[in-house]
Amino acid sequence: MSNIIDDLTNSFSRLPGIGKKSAARIVNNLLKANPTYIQNFARQLSELQQKIKPCSVCGAWTETNPCPICSNPLRDKSLICVVEQPQDVITIDSTGTFSGLFHVLGGVIAPLEGIGPEQLNIASLLNRAKTEAIKEIIIATNPTFEGDSTAMYLQRLLSEFSTIKVTRLATGIPVGGDLEYADKLTLARSFSGRTTL
Amino acid sequence: MSNIIDDLTNSFSRLPGIGKKSAARIVNNLLKANPTYIQNFARQLSELQQKIKPCSVCGAWTETNPCPICSNPLRDKSLICVVEQPQDVITIDSTGTFSGLFHVLGGVIAPLEGIGPEQLNIASLLNRAKTEAIKEIIIATNPTFEGDSTAMYLQRLLSEFSTIKVTRLATGIPVGGDLEYADKLTLARSFSGRTTL
Repeated sequence: MSNIIDDLTNSFSRLPGIGKKSAARIVNNLLKANPTYIQNFARQLSELQQKIKPCSVCGAWTETNPCPICSNPLRDKSLICVVEQPQDVITIDSTGTFSGLFHVLGGVIAPLEGIGPEQLNIASLLNRAKTEAIKEIIIATNPTFEGDSTAMYLQRLLSEFSTIKVTRLATGIPVGGDLEYADKLTLARSFSGRTTL
Repeated sequence: MSNIIDDLTNSFSRLPGIGKKSAARIVNNLLKANPTYIQNFARQLSELQQKIKPCSVCGAWTETNPCPICSNPLRDKSLICVVEQPQDVITIDSTGTFSGLFHVLGGVIAPLEGIGPEQLNIASLLNRAKTEAIKEIIIATNPTFEGDSTAMYLQRLLSEFSTIKVTRLATGIPVGGDLEYADKLTLARSFSGRTTL
């Protein structure tokens, strides 16, 4: 029917997790929505990529450079948590359990997809290991095949810094989970990583 | 962390069917998306409400007035399909089975929500019944309690036009459905509305 409705529906349906029907529902909802909300929404969307850039130190998305975490004097600068993606920084930071700094790899080593170590922010990590007073590097890549291999690869590279402890996030049964529904691999890992009470 | 990421995440999470986590995932996806796509998306969003208005004849969303359906000479002008919402016009029109005109009520009679007949586009429907050469009015409100009551209410009002046949969309088991999973009301309706083979 009307072109802009179709265009906007198409734009919404290109987003992850939104199909044609949800997109149509969203657009119908927007037609009756508060105009100020819509104008703010459109402005935020249009400014997003101009305002947000990767932090030159850690690689997290930020409006200021260095990012608020890297430039926070209260953060523990002897601890670095290495993650795959910029959004992992937000996820971990929102738990409030980690007070150190971050380092975003920008992915994991995946030879089948043509992603080798040289495409990731590994050189800058080694440089930080060399120049900053780091005591521990926590490798928080996802517990997948690629995430695990990347963790092993980093561990080997970082072993030359004898004063830096290299650790890996614990894998096991999630809190609130049920043994019955845990897959074999997770269960096996929770056994090998068992802790003393 | 960064303000515009939070703002945009909030804007997305106000849309129907999108929660906080999906909104965050969408924003992360947009940070890496094609800039042209994002700028078009923002422009469409910002222009939506200015460009789209209800058709002065039928009430469907349209960029031109009257809407492409009302002004299409190939449409059967003796048939009017009465629907609750503007999006119902798009839904029905996309099936390609209906070639008549539409009339959007803008809701249904719902006394508990304070919506009476006078808040709906009923006067304009009666006016069309009076002035246009209509042979049949198909009432396609949803088969809910309110939709059914509104249909009965309209049927009573329209009974004064003896030349106009008033019909209602069939309710019953959906195509591809299974008797086992049909609820009692739907099953009862499919019995009372049974057709001769």
